[in-house]
Amino acid sequence: MKFTTTRPKISQFTYLDFNATTPPAEFLQTKVVEWLHQWGNPSSIHQAGRGPKTLLRESRQKIAKFLGTDSLEIIFTAGGSEANNRAIRGSFDYAKAHSNPRNEIIISSVEHPSLMKSAQSLVASGARLHILPVSREGQIDLKLYRSLLSEKTLLVSVMLANNETGTIFPVKEMAALAHEKGALFHSDCVQAMGKIEFDVKELGLDLASFAGHKFYAFKGVGVLFSARGTNLQTEIYGGGQERHRRGGTENLLAICSLAEMTAFKSEIFEQGQRVQKMRDYFEAEVLKQISEVSITANQNLRLPNTSSLVIPGVDGETLLMNLDMRGFGASTGAACSSGSPEPSPALLAMGLARYEAQSSLRVGLGWSTEESEVENFIENLAAVVEHLRSIKNLKSKIYSEARELHA
Amino acid sequence: MKFTTTRPKISQFTYLDFNATTPPAEFLQTKVVEWLHQWGNPSSIHQAGRGPKTLLRESRQKIAKFLGTDSLEIIFTAGGSEANNRAIRGSFDYAKAHSNPRNEIIISSVEHPSLMKSAQSLVASGARLHILPVSREGQIDLKLYRSLLSEKTLLVSVMLANNETGTIFPVKEMAALAHEKGALFHSDCVQAMGKIEFDVKELGLDLASFAGHKFYAFKGVGVLFSARGTNLQTEIYGGGQERHRRGGTENLLAICSLAEMTAFKSEIFEQGQRVQKMRDYFEAEVLKQISEVSITANQNLRLPNTSSLVIPGVDGETLLMNLDMRGFGASTGAACSSGSPEPSPALLAMGLARYEAQSSLRVGLGWSTEESEVENFIENLAAVVEHLRSIKNLKSKIYSEARELHA
Repeated sequence: MKFTTTRPKISQFTYLDFNATTPPAEFLQTKVVEWLHQWGNPSSIHQAGRGPKTLLRESRQKIAKFLGTDSLEIIFTAGGSEANNRAIRGSFDYAKAHSNPRNEIIISSVEHPSLMKSAQSLVASGARLHILPVSREGQIDLKLYRSLLSEKTLLVSVMLANNETGTIFPVKEMAALAHEKGALFHSDCVQAMGKIEFDVKELGLDLASFAGHKFYAFKGVGVLFSARGTNLQTEIYGGGQERHRRGGTENLLAICSLAEMTAFKSEIFEQGQRVQKMRDYFEAEVLKQISEVSITANQNLRLPNTSSLVIPGVDGETLLMNLDMRGFGASTGAACSSGSPEPSPALLAMGLARYEAQSSLRVGLGWSTEESEVENFIENLAAVVEHLRSIKNLKSKIYSEARELHA
Repeated sequence: MKFTTTRPKISQFTYLDFNATTPPAEFLQTKVVEWLHQWGNPSSIHQAGRGPKTLLRESRQKIAKFLGTDSLEIIFTAGGSEANNRAIRGSFDYAKAHSNPRNEIIISSVEHPSLMKSAQSLVASGARLHILPVSREGQIDLKLYRSLLSEKTLLVSVMLANNETGTIFPVKEMAALAHEKGALFHSDCVQAMGKIEFDVKELGLDLASFAGHKFYAFKGVGVLFSARGTNLQTEIYGGGQERHRRGGTENLLAICSLAEMTAFKSEIFEQGQRVQKMRDYFEAEVLKQISEVSITANQNLRLPNTSSLVIPGVDGETLLMNLDMRGFGASTGAACSSGSPEPSPALLAMGLARYEAQSSLRVGLGWSTEESEVENFIENLAAVVEHLRSIKNLKSKIYSEARELHA
C-alpha cells in the first residue's frame, strides 16, 4: 500500500511541521468508521464487549511487537505527555512510598516540557534533580554524566531524539552506565518513533514514552513501555484497566489507529532515507542562498527529517507569519509552546543566545513531503528572509539618519 | 434530527448496558471524517493549527454551556477516571503543598473505583478519610454527614448518581453544608450526564467529573469542571495546554464528539421520560413474572434508565452468560470491574449480603432502546431464571437424595 496522509482542508498549503504533529494516514478515515462499530466497553463480558476487547488485545500485541517488547510491558496513556509524567513521577512516588533511599534524578537540559516540569515538580517532594547540559553541537557531557551517577541515582531520563533539533542522544550507552549503578533509565521516544528504527530492549530501556499522533495515528493515545520488574506508583486509579496500572475506559479508536501504523515499520528506514535526502538538500540550499544561516547541531547524529536553523536578522515569529501567508507551515520551537513569546528553552539550554533562539526556525519533513514542496519552500524562505532583512536594514538606516540629523 | 446510534456489528443483539458505555450517535460517523481533516496541532500558530484551535475553542464553549458554566472552568481529560483522580488528588496535593491545615476527605461508600481508590491512596500521604454509608434503600446518612463536617474538612466527594443502582444523591444540599464549613465539594457526574437535567452552578459544585462515552460520544474524553478559584495541583505537566492545568496535545476527535452531543440537551428530559416508562414497565413485569426478585434502592430517587435487581437462587455471572447467548447484554456490576469474580463493592457497601450481590443484575436502558427490546428481554430473562433455578433445584434434589442414600 502506498502511504498517503489525510490532506488538510486548506488548498495550496505545504505542511513542514511534522514534529508538531502528523496528518493521520489516509486509510484510517475508512478504518475509523469500522472501529466505531466496536463501541462496547472492552471490560463488558457480553458480546458488545468482546469485539472491542479483541481489538484492544490485538492492538496491544502489534504495538508491543513494533517497539520490540511484549503486551505485558505496554501501558496505554492519553498521550506522550502523560507517559512522560507517569514515568518520572510514578518511579519517584513508588520509591518514596517504599522507602527507597535513592532520590536523585538525572535528566538532560533539552527534555520536553512534560518531562522537565514533571521532574522539577518532584524537587518539592524531596527529589534531587541534576540537569545535564547539552552543547550547541548537540553533545551531552558524558564525563559529567558519569560523575553524577551514584548509588543515590534513582532514575535517569534522556530523550532518544530531541523534538526541536532532532539530535539523537547516546541512550544505549547512557542506559548501560545507569544500570551499572542500579538506576532506572527512561527515554522519551515520542519524537523518534517512526523516524528512526529502534527497539526498546536493544536500547536497554526500563521505561520509554511514545505518542500516536507523531506517527500518522490519532491524537489521544500514548504508550508507556514499562519493563517487567519496573515499579511505578499508579497515578490514575480506576476500574483495573491496564492491569491496574492506569485506570479509565480505553480510547480504542486512537489505540487502533496506532496499531494500524505499526504495519509500516518496514518503511521507516526507506522513508527516513528519502526524507533525509530532501532535508540535506534543503539545508545545503539554504546555506547557499541565505547568508549567515547556521544549522543547530548539524554535526551530530540527527533525526533524518528535522532541521533547526538560526537566521540572524529575522524575528522567528514574524518569519513564521510571513511563511504562513505564503502557504507554508513551520515553527520556531515546539508546537506545545507556540503562542508563547518566549524563545525555546531547549535552544537556550544548548547555549544559543536569546536573539539567536528568537531567530530560529524548525522544519520537520514527513512521509508525505514531496521534493517540489521543499523546492518551493526554499524559494519562498529565501524571499521572505530577504524581504524581512531589507525592512530591518531600512529601519536601521532611517534610525541612523534620524540620529545623525539630531546629533 | 432523530437520534440514532451506531449499531453494533452483531446481528440480533439487544444492548441493555448503557451505564457501561453508550454507542456513539450515528451521525458522528460522518463527522469524525470531517474532523480528521482538522488534524493540525491546536498549539501550532500556522494555518494547519488554526482550524483545530477554533474547533477546540468552540467545543469547549458548547460543553461549558451544556454543563452550565463557562470555558475557563473546563479542563479536558482522557475520561471520567482521570477527572475523578484529578479532582481528589489535585485538591489534596494542592492543600498539602500550600500547608493548608485541612486534611479530611469525606466520600460516600458507593463511589466509582476511580474515586474510591484515589481517595484511599491519599491516606498514606496524610489524608483522613471518612466514608459515608449508603443504605440498601439508597439513602445517605445526612445526620452522620453533618457530624463529620468540620473545619478540618478539605473536600467532600459524593456522586450525583450511582452507576450501579442509579440512586441520585442530594448533592445540592450536601454541597451547601460543605460550604458552610469552608470545604470544597466535588461530584462525580459521569453517570448522570445525559440521563437527567442538571447544572453544575445550580448544584453549587466546586468540582465535577464527566465522560463523553457515557453520553453517545467517543471514548477518550472526560471533563473536569473546576470552578474559578478552586485550586488544583497539576497532575500532568506538559506544554501549557488547558491553561497549564493539564498538559498533552488535545484529543480533538473525542472532544468534538462530546461537543456535538450537547446539541441534544433539550432531549434529555423527554428521552428520560420515555426510558423511565420502559424501565418501570420492565421492573413491574419482572416483579410479576419472577418470584422473590427485589429491586435495589427503588424507593429512592433514581436515574430513569437504571434498574439493579437481586434475583435469589441465580448466580449473576451465569445469568449474564445465558442472557448473552440469547443475545442480550446486561451486567452484574460496573463494567470496569467485570471479569472480576468479586461481587460489586458498591452493592456490598449498601448492605446487600454477598450472596445477594452475587445474584445481582444491572439493566441500563438508553436513547435507542425500543419497547419491543424490553418486552423480549423480560420474556428471556424469566425463561433463563426459571431454567437456572430448576437446574439448581435439581442439583439440590440429587444431593439430598445422595445424602439420604449415604445416611
